[in-house]
Amino acid sequence: MAEKKIPLNREQLEALTERFPTPFHIYDEKAIRENAQRLKAAFAWNPGFKEYFAVKAAPNPYLMKILKAEGFGADCSSLPELMLAESIGLSGEEIILSANDMPANELVKATELGAIINLDDISHIEYLEQCAGLPEAISIRYNPGPLKSGNTIIGHPEEAKYGFTREQLFEGYRILRDKGVKRFGLHTMVASNELDGSYFVETAHILFDLVAELSTELGVKVEFINIGGGIGIPYKPEEQAVDLTFVGEGIRELYEEKIEKAGLAPLDLNMECGRMITGPYGWLVSRVLHEKNTYKQFVGLDACMTNLMRPALYGAYHHITVSGKEDASCDFVCDVTGSLCENNDKFAIDRAIPKVDIGDLVVIHDAGAHGHAMGFNYNAKLRSAELLLREDGEVVQIRRAETVEDYFATLDFKGLQSFES
Amino acid sequence: MAEKKIPLNREQLEALTERFPTPFHIYDEKAIRENAQRLKAAFAWNPGFKEYFAVKAAPNPYLMKILKAEGFGADCSSLPELMLAESIGLSGEEIILSANDMPANELVKATELGAIINLDDISHIEYLEQCAGLPEAISIRYNPGPLKSGNTIIGHPEEAKYGFTREQLFEGYRILRDKGVKRFGLHTMVASNELDGSYFVETAHILFDLVAELSTELGVKVEFINIGGGIGIPYKPEEQAVDLTFVGEGIRELYEEKIEKAGLAPLDLNMECGRMITGPYGWLVSRVLHEKNTYKQFVGLDACMTNLMRPALYGAYHHITVSGKEDASCDFVCDVTGSLCENNDKFAIDRAIPKVDIGDLVVIHDAGAHGHAMGFNYNAKLRSAELLLREDGEVVQIRRAETVEDYFATLDFKGLQSFES
Repeated sequence: MAEKKIPLNREQLEALTERFPTPFHIYDEKAIRENAQRLKAAFAWNPGFKEYFAVKAAPNPYLMKILKAEGFGADCSSLPELMLAESIGLSGEEIILSANDMPANELVKATELGAIINLDDISHIEYLEQCAGLPEAISIRYNPGPLKSGNTIIGHPEEAKYGFTREQLFEGYRILRDKGVKRFGLHTMVASNELDGSYFVETAHILFDLVAELSTELGVKVEFINIGGGIGIPYKPEEQAVDLTFVGEGIRELYEEKIEKAGLAPLDLNMECGRMITGPYGWLVSRVLHEKNTYKQFVGLDACMTNLMRPALYGAYHHITVSGKEDASCDFVCDVTGSLCENNDKFAIDRAIPKVDIGDLVVIHDAGAHGHAMGFNYNAKLRSAELLLREDGEVVQIRRAETVEDYFATLDFKGLQSFES
Repeated sequence: MAEKKIPLNREQLEALTERFPTPFHIYDEKAIRENAQRLKAAFAWNPGFKEYFAVKAAPNPYLMKILKAEGFGADCSSLPELMLAESIGLSGEEIILSANDMPANELVKATELGAIINLDDISHIEYLEQCAGLPEAISIRYNPGPLKSGNTIIGHPEEAKYGFTREQLFEGYRILRDKGVKRFGLHTMVASNELDGSYFVETAHILFDLVAELSTELGVKVEFINIGGGIGIPYKPEEQAVDLTFVGEGIRELYEEKIEKAGLAPLDLNMECGRMITGPYGWLVSRVLHEKNTYKQFVGLDACMTNLMRPALYGAYHHITVSGKEDASCDFVCDVTGSLCENNDKFAIDRAIPKVDIGDLVVIHDAGAHGHAMGFNYNAKLRSAELLLREDGEVVQIRRAETVEDYFATLDFKGLQSFES
């Protein structure tokens, strides 16, 4: 079993809380960089390999700037995410807009930035043409439907709202080709949080075959394929991380056979991972406010769903340790709860942890992706700060905590005074 | 089947969208007031009856101000909610702080306001005493555990994180009495979104019996009971709203038998409804951006989970109509989706609606509670405006839409420039 560790001991965390009150998210720069380098190494055989970090996972420009320094681009799903990419100096084809049901202003902005647009539906060709014009290079998202089974998280592809069918895909490229588009990409993503590496090899296989067919049938030369994100992380200690070398080598073998031998090289390989890039290297740190013993044992934290939605939203497992009690035996079974008046607001149910004391610092692991990003303000709870442990050991704040003023920002209290009720 | 209607026709809604772009939430003041009056009428037999509006359902001070004018107080679950109550001039025992796992600053603020504090755990007596001192009047939340089955939404009470056990309840009042607390309240809430009115009568029954026992065993005279909220609303057209008169009269009969005859009157009856107060009188109005036909039919709106989480979070049903097509036959089966890159982001799955056209205004019903309030910013989506249809037909904005600047407010872009990566 992999041991899950935050790279700060209790003393260091306690010292941090004097500057930054709990709860907060903290990310580990060194681990994120090393992980980014591992991903690049696994695909170093492909000179055009590029990872577009899925901004939605951790939409913090400081983290994005670190990832840019590692050579990553940005996979954006909305206008503000495009603006974040712009804010760190990404431009042109370092950015991809890949979303669903996109409004015109996102397409216009992506076009201005020269970003790759990943079309989600055949009707979007005309929509894009009308609102922003067709670019020189464009990508299409493929949904294999019943031809491929999705994983348990993303469900059956044919139920998913994303992408073109096979017939639409060929029709789409034909239309784009005839309209003068010069360069083409092909994208799919049919899994989320998948730990079986062969899944990604299989995804590349599907796309390589399509690249060959598109070349033969339409004379369309696909320049880049994007096998999506979806690489899972071992949330549970007994789970194994995806072996990136296995995935990289598996895809390399297929590439040699399906692409190089067929004279279709070079073909750039792209990914849009989010979770596996920052997920394991971010922690939610929270303090035990209350212990409660009724029909069950409860440990009440000063964090809640606002800081991390996944357990309540998906029933997701997040590992929990108690700072300074890493070696204590886990013989205290309890529900670890947040402070929201919402019955779902529990970080863990019937979890065995070390016996905690009020005031203990609790560490919730694997909160570095889809953690802070998904927080809401239900119950008027405020979203917490994000900190970064730099490579030199310094801790800097990369997002301040919300204030009551932030929460009230969209309300006109002056108007309220004269509002007749 | 009840017909679900928004009190604005297509022409009026289209005119509104020129001032306020979709999506937006709009509330109906007249309907909210009439509903508030129905609730009061059902309990008019109890001179001390007070409804504390559950702010979390719709934390908008304009709505709260209307409800204050109807005699309602505020049920708050956090510091900013207490501040909202204060902002509309509520004070003292017009406010109740009823939350779980409360931090000290909420208890201090509630004490300053003279609000009723509803203790959630026996350990909170000491916690409150230390951080703010014990007030003259206080309430305790009871969790009947296996003595009462919860409804399907809130689950089994013994699994819930809320409240005192029966033994703790008696011990809690004894401690409070001995510490000099003079006035006592008793609270429970074991259901959420319950449509069976007899459930609330039964809840009152449990509390009336406890009031009698507390009087006999401890000499503690409970002055007010709060039977919680939890009154459901008919989200589905075939469902029936709770008959408030049935509930009011059912509780009245018990009151006469259990309280008056036992010499325990007067006992004030309180509630903390949220959903049934504003839920049916608020709508999410959104425009059809795209239609998509792959393995299924999809209708893509310009709204998403950011505007309404309940379908994705709970699989909840929200009725959907198409403005101007209220009388058209519902023979178009589709998934009505939001624009989030999140597979869950669907307002309806396999729903039969009238055939829509791009640009149509879609109305999502019963979005007046736990709608805007639960929105998150995932995918960097911005939360929408809230509008109020006043009794005179005027429409006013009671919360502006979020801007990109709001979304970026907690980020330091200047610091980002000098951040070395």
